[in-house]
Amino acid sequence: MTQEEAAQQLARHRQSIDEIDRRIVACLNERATVVEHIGRVKQQMTMPVYEPKREEDVFRNVTENNPGPMPSDAVRRVFERIIDEMRTLQRIRMQNAANAEKGS
Amino acid sequence: MTQEEAAQQLARHRQSIDEIDRRIVACLNERATVVEHIGRVKQQMTMPVYEPKREEDVFRNVTENNPGPMPSDAVRRVFERIIDEMRTLQRIRMQNAANAEKGS
Repeated sequence: MTQEEAAQQLARHRQSIDEIDRRIVACLNERATVVEHIGRVKQQMTMPVYEPKREEDVFRNVTENNPGPMPSDAVRRVFERIIDEMRTLQRIRMQNAANAEKGS
Repeated sequence: MTQEEAAQQLARHRQSIDEIDRRIVACLNERATVVEHIGRVKQQMTMPVYEPKREEDVFRNVTENNPGPMPSDAVRRVFERIIDEMRTLQRIRMQNAANAEKGS
């Protein structure tokens, strides 16, 4: 493989990665929207935001549906971060909603 | 909303999340496969695995293509984890390849 061929291959692979990453971003936002719907239902019913059993279901779903090559513990760590970010987002939204309520 | 209606809505939303999560897992594995291709090109050409400039391009791609509701700093943190896990995977693979080489 010449330097030029290698550079071309890398460029092509990086385009693929950028395209995959944009799909992941779309999925994250789709997920955040559903999490917001769940938050509203829970708020209306005064249910707890944090449910450890449900989190275990989420981890089970992703590790049982993981064909690789990503190891399942790596997939789990990525989802720990995703869930953590979603929880932070939900907390901010609920705080804002509560403040808006107070202000109205 | 009755308790039963709330439970039904939550169940439906959770099904959506599980389906989105399986799509994310598929993307992560697709990404890991492309990263392996990149690793092989780099190994053949004895190029460095870690390229900070490329990582910044990855973060720029995902934050510039983020319509929300996920804040861009949250998206960036999720991708920091993804990149970190991919790097670990690549290191393990290269180590295994080197060991196989030694053994042959």
